[in-house]
Amino acid sequence: MITREQAGALDLDDPLAEMTDRFVVPDGLVYLDGNSLGLMPRGVPERSEQVIAQWSQRLIRGWMEEGWWELPLRLGDRIGRLIGAAPGQVVVCDTTTVNLYKVLLAAAALSPGRTHIVIEEGAFPTDRYIAEAVARRIGGRTRVMPRSGPSVDLFVDEDVAVVVMNHVDFRTAEIADMSLVTAAVHESGALVVWDLSHSAGVLPISLDLWDVDFAVGCTYKYLNGGPGAPAYLYVNAAHLERATNPIPGWIGHADPFLMEEDYRPAPGIRRFITGTQPIVSMSLLAAALDAYEGVDIGRVRAKSIALTGLFIDLVDQRLGLEVASPRDPERRGSQVSLRHPDAPGVYDRLVAAGLQGDVRPPDLLRFGFAPLYVSFSDVWDAVDILDSVLGE
Amino acid sequence: MITREQAGALDLDDPLAEMTDRFVVPDGLVYLDGNSLGLMPRGVPERSEQVIAQWSQRLIRGWMEEGWWELPLRLGDRIGRLIGAAPGQVVVCDTTTVNLYKVLLAAAALSPGRTHIVIEEGAFPTDRYIAEAVARRIGGRTRVMPRSGPSVDLFVDEDVAVVVMNHVDFRTAEIADMSLVTAAVHESGALVVWDLSHSAGVLPISLDLWDVDFAVGCTYKYLNGGPGAPAYLYVNAAHLERATNPIPGWIGHADPFLMEEDYRPAPGIRRFITGTQPIVSMSLLAAALDAYEGVDIGRVRAKSIALTGLFIDLVDQRLGLEVASPRDPERRGSQVSLRHPDAPGVYDRLVAAGLQGDVRPPDLLRFGFAPLYVSFSDVWDAVDILDSVLGE
Repeated sequence: MITREQAGALDLDDPLAEMTDRFVVPDGLVYLDGNSLGLMPRGVPERSEQVIAQWSQRLIRGWMEEGWWELPLRLGDRIGRLIGAAPGQVVVCDTTTVNLYKVLLAAAALSPGRTHIVIEEGAFPTDRYIAEAVARRIGGRTRVMPRSGPSVDLFVDEDVAVVVMNHVDFRTAEIADMSLVTAAVHESGALVVWDLSHSAGVLPISLDLWDVDFAVGCTYKYLNGGPGAPAYLYVNAAHLERATNPIPGWIGHADPFLMEEDYRPAPGIRRFITGTQPIVSMSLLAAALDAYEGVDIGRVRAKSIALTGLFIDLVDQRLGLEVASPRDPERRGSQVSLRHPDAPGVYDRLVAAGLQGDVRPPDLLRFGFAPLYVSFSDVWDAVDILDSVLGE
Repeated sequence: MITREQAGALDLDDPLAEMTDRFVVPDGLVYLDGNSLGLMPRGVPERSEQVIAQWSQRLIRGWMEEGWWELPLRLGDRIGRLIGAAPGQVVVCDTTTVNLYKVLLAAAALSPGRTHIVIEEGAFPTDRYIAEAVARRIGGRTRVMPRSGPSVDLFVDEDVAVVVMNHVDFRTAEIADMSLVTAAVHESGALVVWDLSHSAGVLPISLDLWDVDFAVGCTYKYLNGGPGAPAYLYVNAAHLERATNPIPGWIGHADPFLMEEDYRPAPGIRRFITGTQPIVSMSLLAAALDAYEGVDIGRVRAKSIALTGLFIDLVDQRLGLEVASPRDPERRGSQVSLRHPDAPGVYDRLVAAGLQGDVRPPDLLRFGFAPLYVSFSDVWDAVDILDSVLGE
């Protein structure tokens, strides 16, 4: 039986342990919900005061003189470094939903004559709704493909324009092999859009290297941008000059201040900005990304595997609950889901006892392990709380 | 010649004069750019601290326990009161661009068989780009209609699904007669979408009474929500249950936490929320709207007419520049544009001299008069600065 002392010893050896200081950690709470909403990075309040002072004093001139205008691109490049994208291919704007809609239509427009969209089984609901909305819009329909297995070519034929995949499954944390699936989709003549919401910041991702076509993701989970922080989208450099934003606005125009009647897309990724972005929330994301400065994602991944592995070991030893996430660490994201017939009831009691996870229907308790601020002692304490609550 | 003393006397009689205390007014600046970005309301810093504390301490539970989840609807109803919409028809979310795209496609879907979109001449560029994108998307094209004149029926025939209009022209501040145009469009069998970006908060608007179909607007101009603050959209109650959001997300689902595979729209306006909204920026908008509490829009409008009227009188007396805005106060929004062949050069010198307006190509100097914080003395000082700068 692993003891709390042994867990504490792992913390002493943890090269990322000091990263916890970059976050505000509420007292008396074991927070295993960074896969829903990350902890607040320490730099946020100061950055908030700064941007509010900019607004109140600099007013309209803040757009140019305080760099608000370039923020979507500057933040995009910073996120690009975390997901393997060279500069100029990522922009921060809008919501994941809107960005998925934009890149799906953009991808479909690059595949003329193809009208079907393939979506994986068990996809995040929004991804599925958007895939269906876009498929209808281009005169086709969706096909549902099993998430794993060597079956891409069975589902992707000459009618399929785009495949939409979640890198990490939101229920089970199962990782899809981005490199392999992308190559198989290309082999079948289609394009692929990856949703990185549950992987960016905790898994090594090499969008450029793996030749991914498009990607989207949110910034409020492992990237710690705050509730509803603006999302991002990625366009492969090979597509950038031909890809069109289906929701074109003046900010994405080649020369916005000419205010021309005719739309001419800006060169590069800027064309995918749709409308004036929420600068205060964007600025706090800038402060949040500071928490990743100097952090090696390989090291984050190693700790993530160790944290989730310890959690599963302790669950096996003390709880005997069914683990709904892959036991193979190579296939498991930074989350472990447990099955329980009364997941919502258990969730409420866990919260009351100081453990914050979350719950997904019908019977999953989800626990997210953000390696920048979750310790091995936290993992031990979480299982201890689970043990108490389930034993009541 | 009107003297500064006479302007000061108008301030003493101004029933809205004390509203200035609700805003942070930078020293030594005459700010006539509230039609681009409003001053910061005083309650913003405190609200910012609150929402950041909610994030850091309450974390994921803030969504329900701090009311983040309902914020788009609560703020929508508050804006509804300023634009003549009964509760349940306005939602705050996304950008004006995205919202215009959504309601245009929603309106087109309510007009089956009609594929053309009419847009007014000189529309704000984004509105035009979106109208064209949506027209292409539904297999039609756009037609350009003169903004004024009794000509709606000449442009709106059985091929036209929707007419898109700006309530107040962004260049000249000319008001379109929303009641009259809406009735004429309906007479021709089409629907109408109004962009209220340059009118909400300074003009009396009665969306319900005038039977407007859809409307959108931004919140960072006269509503003072801050740079890039989230936008809003309005759907007439008569359309609500049939209207579909073309960018459907899980938050707009009838029962989001079931995470169903099939999309079922939420009853009412909630279905038009697309994605997780930026809560910090949304919360600051809540503080900003406090500045409108207890304010009578009729009184705001009366002061707006007096401010712009005084400005035009002084321009006539002292500058002799061409006034590009309507001289008829009934047709003029809360802005006056002046023509100058070197508008960008003059703009720079005005800023250096302490007058913040803005400039629009090719030759317009724009000055916005936000009646909650612009005084008659400000108007006098503005023309005095203009006089000095132009006389150099």
